[in-house]
Amino acid sequence: MAVTLAELARRFHGRVKGNPELAVTRVASLDSAGPGDIAFLSDRKNLAKLTKTAAGAVIVTEADASHFTGSALIVSDPHLCFARVAQFLHPFPKFSTGVHATAVIESGAQVATTAWIGPHSVVESGAKIGDDAYVGPGCYIGKNATLGARTRLVGHVVIGERCVTGMDCVVYPGAVIGGDGFGFARDGARWQKVPQLGRVVIGNDVEVGANTTIDRGALDDTEIGNGVKLDNLIQIAHNVQIGDNTAIAAGVGIAGSTRIGQRCTLGGQSGVVGHLDIVDEVHITAGSLVTSSIREAGVYSSSLKALPVDKWRRNAALLHRLEEMSQRLKEIEENLELRSKEHKK
Amino acid sequence: MAVTLAELARRFHGRVKGNPELAVTRVASLDSAGPGDIAFLSDRKNLAKLTKTAAGAVIVTEADASHFTGSALIVSDPHLCFARVAQFLHPFPKFSTGVHATAVIESGAQVATTAWIGPHSVVESGAKIGDDAYVGPGCYIGKNATLGARTRLVGHVVIGERCVTGMDCVVYPGAVIGGDGFGFARDGARWQKVPQLGRVVIGNDVEVGANTTIDRGALDDTEIGNGVKLDNLIQIAHNVQIGDNTAIAAGVGIAGSTRIGQRCTLGGQSGVVGHLDIVDEVHITAGSLVTSSIREAGVYSSSLKALPVDKWRRNAALLHRLEEMSQRLKEIEENLELRSKEHKK
Amino acid sequence: MAVTLAELARRFHGRVKGNPELAVTRVASLDSAGPGDIAFLSDRKNLAKLTKTAAGAVIVTEADASHFTGSALIVSDPHLCFARVAQFLHPFPKFSTGVHATAVIESGAQVATTAWIGPHSVVESGAKIGDDAYVGPGCYIGKNATLGARTRLVGHVVIGERCVTGMDCVVYPGAVIGGDGFGFARDGARWQKVPQLGRVVIGNDVEVGANTTIDRGALDDTEIGNGVKLDNLIQIAHNVQIGDNTAIAAGVGIAGSTRIGQRCTLGGQSGVVGHLDIVDEVHITAGSLVTSSIREAGVYSSSLKALPVDKWRRNAALLHRLEEMSQRLKEIEENLELRSKEHKK
Repeated sequence: MAVTLAELARRFHGRVKGNPELAVTRVASLDSAGPGDIAFLSDRKNLAKLTKTAAGAVIVTEADASHFTGSALIVSDPHLCFARVAQFLHPFPKFSTGVHATAVIESGAQVATTAWIGPHSVVESGAKIGDDAYVGPGCYIGKNATLGARTRLVGHVVIGERCVTGMDCVVYPGAVIGGDGFGFARDGARWQKVPQLGRVVIGNDVEVGANTTIDRGALDDTEIGNGVKLDNLIQIAHNVQIGDNTAIAAGVGIAGSTRIGQRCTLGGQSGVVGHLDIVDEVHITAGSLVTSSIREAGVYSSSLKALPVDKWRRNAALLHRLEEMSQRLKEIEENLELRSKEHKK
Repeated sequence: MAVTLAELARRFHGRVKGNPELAVTRVASLDSAGPGDIAFLSDRKNLAKLTKTAAGAVIVTEADASHFTGSALIVSDPHLCFARVAQFLHPFPKFSTGVHATAVIESGAQVATTAWIGPHSVVESGAKIGDDAYVGPGCYIGKNATLGARTRLVGHVVIGERCVTGMDCVVYPGAVIGGDGFGFARDGARWQKVPQLGRVVIGNDVEVGANTTIDRGALDDTEIGNGVKLDNLIQIAHNVQIGDNTAIAAGVGIAGSTRIGQRCTLGGQSGVVGHLDIVDEVHITAGSLVTSSIREAGVYSSSLKALPVDKWRRNAALLHRLEEMSQRLKEIEENLELRSKEHKK
Repeated sequence: MAVTLAELARRFHGRVKGNPELAVTRVASLDSAGPGDIAFLSDRKNLAKLTKTAAGAVIVTEADASHFTGSALIVSDPHLCFARVAQFLHPFPKFSTGVHATAVIESGAQVATTAWIGPHSVVESGAKIGDDAYVGPGCYIGKNATLGARTRLVGHVVIGERCVTGMDCVVYPGAVIGGDGFGFARDGARWQKVPQLGRVVIGNDVEVGANTTIDRGALDDTEIGNGVKLDNLIQIAHNVQIGDNTAIAAGVGIAGSTRIGQRCTLGGQSGVVGHLDIVDEVHITAGSLVTSSIREAGVYSSSLKALPVDKWRRNAALLHRLEEMSQRLKEIEENLELRSKEHKK
């Protein structure tokens, strides 16, 4: 598909500098773009690339436009505009509707006529697959589970019994939605399983990354708000609640019954222990551990930066002796005061 | 299924306060329970909920019973009793026996007549599937692997060649039991693979969470004891041994050849490096890293608590200067002593 | 298969001590080996095992050979030689060629006649499966993806559209190669998806562990060099580049656009934030977080060692008061200097 800059400007509220009839067919990076491509600049430390790129057109701010000699789409937020242009030029391809010959649809399942069920997928009885939903190869949709309209399971996805996925979601391979929560009661030396009877309920416009796991609630539900974005290999434990538009990077773990607010971001490999409350617009840096509730918006961290190992080990050893250092500091202070008193005598 | 409090008291060693003929049909939380439901209180900070709940009955201790005006099941450990009542009221549903038409059973596999092999599952030659075992959709059981009686693979589970899973286990989707251990020998700049020839041997009454990986041993076996509970996204490396009734939370990694004792607990995202020995009843807090063997039972930690980032960064920067601080402390002490000596002169 | 020590010595550049006609059929550990087995000693702290082993033969260095009374294969690097002997005695078993009856091969896919496509696997149109490649059960090969000669997908592997896996690779179950990168543009309170249009390109002789995820690039590709070894549950984000022969342990996360050099090692659960450059031969210890580019080869760390929790908590609390401690130290120094000045007056 080719589209003119004029058309892009009209659709995405920009202004054309140069030739409005210039047509582009795909998006590309400044480094690899050719004459038929449109690229963008958002990070000004790459400004030099604007002068060197072979891109047919670029998306830039007014302020940066002078650095590119070709035609440009001028907008206030090039990254956001680029996302929209890329969505427009590279939509998810049209898919067939119907059910692949190798898929298993149990009786009592409701599959919309505009949906697709891929090869070797299984849809259990009572499950509902919404309009224009796409269930890729090798998926499992449990009993009475619900998949909203236009939601796309890329393939190899498991949606457990009774779990609900909203509209316009995308779920990547290996994601497991609705495994049992990790709930056991001590029974002497042994553990008794606490049956996990709740569901996972996911809102609209949610992405769930590859191999991410979201456990069903113990009694009530685990809840993922609208617009939440989950990267790969994330663990969401039972009865967690995640507010709208929160984004969580790969490798994060959130323990049971914790509530995360709206518009939060959690950096990669960070963790939040159980039964906490995190308010809206809290940002956790990569690798940090949240061990108590957070009542105020802001950025929180406990991450340490890797150093050359010798230097690090000497410092880390002292960390384990901080108590002693603190004690010595106190003694010095007392000593100084004592001496000072003696002095005065 | 409806059951009276009298029957529950008889089965689970409790005492009825109120109406012994009151019947309940399901468990629920104090917040969401209705007249036909039984809830429980274990955490006394929720005591106020007892007065507000619409539950038909509750499971409580003698001491807390007075806070609930309805009928109650009085026990010494409400959480444990609740687990048992929930198991009784919400058993894993009866399943069909036999082999789904789309499953592939290679010749030489032995599948018990009371077992179920779900759609698109594959059972290789020499594999043995025990009585009443449940193999959900999309599972793979490798050559000569063994699945014990009543063990349930929820679906999308891989059990590698020759690996053994005991009786009464539950394995959640995406778990991979018996991938190769990560074993390579340096060969100049390159790596030579060390074939991984051992097995994974899992005891009875074990749970393995979603997307958890347990690698086969290099030469001897990786061993998971009876009653071990593994949450999601855990890595158990080759030749690890885990003692009976140890419970491990999500995101934990245990490196090769480490031995963990019995009745240990490992908090979420904690890690244990390789070739260590951890005795029984060791508890590791979330996010901690164990880098040397632990000889004494107890709680161990190296976790840091996230703080507002500005405060954290100032402290973390100083952590990297601890050596210098320690040096300055020493100088002050010497200085003070020096001056003290001078004084005496 | 039985092979004589003489033959092993010839193939793997060793020297026989004792009986060159002694035949062995498999490798085993010193602890479990019997008369027909060959074991090895690399770690000298296990030297005592050499005198007790029932192994038919051992692989040892010249220096250690005297501790074993039986026949031995003398080499300079027993671990490396053992890897080769184990590969020789325990090759990956010959597999059938062709396509399993339950596999789905879309028209336009090219499958080499010497390759195997296992049960319930799907190969999309335009995909190319190389000579002697092995695609285990339940795999998904996306449109126009390429699998090199002799590459083995153990089973339950997903290779996304257009992604390239080189020759002689092994990919373990649950690995997802070519999920979308985690790319979104802020759009007020919401997130707009940035379509992920790049590929994953993997070199030759690469291992990808179970449940590891490698995301496709946003515009350009994510690149994994030759001889790279990835353990389980690793996250490689979009546009990451990993140099040849780098080995990464389980649970590691590498954020977007970071470049890792050649022959690096990353310890378990370590993390690298995005947009960094790490030179060749950098080694990161387990659990460390790399937050800035590394320009010099060497070992880097930020890992902390778990201690008994009471001791740890007292020290960790002080870590959060380092700024205050530093301030007190300064005051003491000033105080001492002040007094010293007063003294001089």
